[in-house]
Amino acid sequence: MKDRPLSGIIVLEFCQYLSGPSAGLRLADLGARVIKIESPKGDACRKLAIEDLWVNDRDSLLFHTINRNKESLTANLKDENDLSKIKKLIGLADVMIHNFRSGVMEKLGLGYEQVMSINSNIIYTEISGYGATGPWVKKPGQDLLCQAKSGLMYTSGNESDPPVPFGLAIGDIICGAQAVQGVLAGLIHVYKTGVGVKLELSLMESLLDFQFELLTTYYESGKLPRRSKTNNGHSLLGAPYGIHQTKDGYIAIAMVPLADLAEAIACEQLLSFGKKDIFSKRDSIKKILAKHLAKQTSQYWIKLLKAKDLWAMELLDWEKLRFQSGYQQMELEQKISLDSDLLTTRCPIRFDNQKLYGEKAAPDLGADTDKIIAEFGL
Amino acid sequence: MKDRPLSGIIVLEFCQYLSGPSAGLRLADLGARVIKIESPKGDACRKLAIEDLWVNDRDSLLFHTINRNKESLTANLKDENDLSKIKKLIGLADVMIHNFRSGVMEKLGLGYEQVMSINSNIIYTEISGYGATGPWVKKPGQDLLCQAKSGLMYTSGNESDPPVPFGLAIGDIICGAQAVQGVLAGLIHVYKTGVGVKLELSLMESLLDFQFELLTTYYESGKLPRRSKTNNGHSLLGAPYGIHQTKDGYIAIAMVPLADLAEAIACEQLLSFGKKDIFSKRDSIKKILAKHLAKQTSQYWIKLLKAKDLWAMELLDWEKLRFQSGYQQMELEQKISLDSDLLTTRCPIRFDNQKLYGEKAAPDLGADTDKIIAEFGL
Repeated sequence: MKDRPLSGIIVLEFCQYLSGPSAGLRLADLGARVIKIESPKGDACRKLAIEDLWVNDRDSLLFHTINRNKESLTANLKDENDLSKIKKLIGLADVMIHNFRSGVMEKLGLGYEQVMSINSNIIYTEISGYGATGPWVKKPGQDLLCQAKSGLMYTSGNESDPPVPFGLAIGDIICGAQAVQGVLAGLIHVYKTGVGVKLELSLMESLLDFQFELLTTYYESGKLPRRSKTNNGHSLLGAPYGIHQTKDGYIAIAMVPLADLAEAIACEQLLSFGKKDIFSKRDSIKKILAKHLAKQTSQYWIKLLKAKDLWAMELLDWEKLRFQSGYQQMELEQKISLDSDLLTTRCPIRFDNQKLYGEKAAPDLGADTDKIIAEFGL
Repeated sequence: MKDRPLSGIIVLEFCQYLSGPSAGLRLADLGARVIKIESPKGDACRKLAIEDLWVNDRDSLLFHTINRNKESLTANLKDENDLSKIKKLIGLADVMIHNFRSGVMEKLGLGYEQVMSINSNIIYTEISGYGATGPWVKKPGQDLLCQAKSGLMYTSGNESDPPVPFGLAIGDIICGAQAVQGVLAGLIHVYKTGVGVKLELSLMESLLDFQFELLTTYYESGKLPRRSKTNNGHSLLGAPYGIHQTKDGYIAIAMVPLADLAEAIACEQLLSFGKKDIFSKRDSIKKILAKHLAKQTSQYWIKLLKAKDLWAMELLDWEKLRFQSGYQQMELEQKISLDSDLLTTRCPIRFDNQKLYGEKAAPDLGADTDKIIAEFGL
């Protein structure tokens, strides 16, 4: 295949945990050379083991999931000698990303203005919880806490449920994805003008942007989203949109005209509702539907719905998904080159009919320090 | 401020609904000129009103939320005359994005190979449900249905809950965000090589990538995620991670050492659990915690937890959020220039200390057709 689009680009990642490192991961998959600048203790994520899963005696599986395809250089940024090496490296880099708390980089002499005096065409990227100023600047920028503040937890689940958090680190991931957008747009700016840019992203702004459809509706209507009593799919959409239990599992039904649905699944009771009722009588409709769908298997219903070209799908968990030929043909899994067989997912963006794999394992702490110091004469 | 990074870039958006148009929206906010190529009927999203909210007698609020800052050109792509105009326009564009079903663009003469013969340095971007080939190619690429197939619905909610869909169109939004990443990386590729690229994205691959941490853990452990019995926060994290009800509301508690938590909130019963118990005895710990936290108000607990620097936050809905000075200082809301006061959110990425607003309202169907035909001599 062609060179990856970011080949030749050097990214310095002064980051821990997920938001910044997930941005670094995508940039690495797109061809950039990503160097993690770690304290002698290392990215704290190295020791954060979910389900107590470790790749070796040094690093957690979680760390390996997020940091493949990168190099690691250790430096004590409070040490003058180490710091001057890092400053030299900054002089040669295209991008830097940090997710330290506000003020930390400035104290180290690596704030935006200070870095600009070293390298005026660098993309300087800051990721925080709530922005670099304002009354929330000292609050912990952690995913669940940002979700809690963002209103997001009132969108999933049913009406009588407590607030439901998204079951993964949505704030970190969305913010990391937007940081990649900013970095790439910044690189284009540098190509055109020769001048670098400062980027700022925050988990909170990312989570609010993520809800842009719902928030705009709220600004306009003044009404908070109302989840349906049962089978909620999307708080702002009418029946039958949602997940419905069958005799042996669950099916998802998307936007489907009620009359067509009633006919397809032979549910006469639904015929008494009109188009205008799908929102105002959402709960009643879903109740009738639930009772009806519980009588037969998922496959039975899917067959009937598919015959009428109505949008429905059987729910899969990962065990079932992995057996599907559609999943297998995506070749989404990739093996990382380690002693043990570590499987993870690849980059989801396909370039010129190529899937982008990156089989280099996450680096041991400081694994590339000597090599990088020699290579760049630091 | 400086020119926006994508100023001068022309993007043609052959898209409907959310995934493609949300990519176009971000590119427009970053400075690109985004032209929607619409059939005489228009993007179907114009008529998709959630909560029956309309901006005027022509277009839904939803359409306006996703399509600000763009132009609209109508063309009947099955008409030779119209098609030749569009081909001329493609010859002048930098990027095109489509989210038609597989085969539609090829039939129209606008497939990748055909477009390359018109403009060899264009970024050609395809967004689909499940990729351009394979056994799922004909399945409807709709957000809820893709969520259902991706396993995602088993990550949120509590153990005994049915599968819980994410309460917004996560697949569309994540895929749109990754399309922006691909387009920007593609533009960098063109700057460096002068040769365009083909990009392919799919809701399904985006949703699986989105779960990369959880999936990698599953590949390794072979165990499906187990949501906690109550107060689930993240299926792979131990107690007390999650949302907890108080006397008057809810608080989120993130990673917090159990012993410190027990001391801070004076809950002696928690002291009997060790570090190793936070996952294996997650449900018991959360049960004790729930009983204890129900006795006092959110503010009472937050004060105690904050005093010990433990990660916790009171839950906010949007009504409460809008009153917070931290929210107000973000200046996330922007007014769109229309007869009525339409408020929406701005771009979440800050460039050089500037927030990127884009107050131009979504175009009426075909509003810019004549202007664009004259401007480019089509």
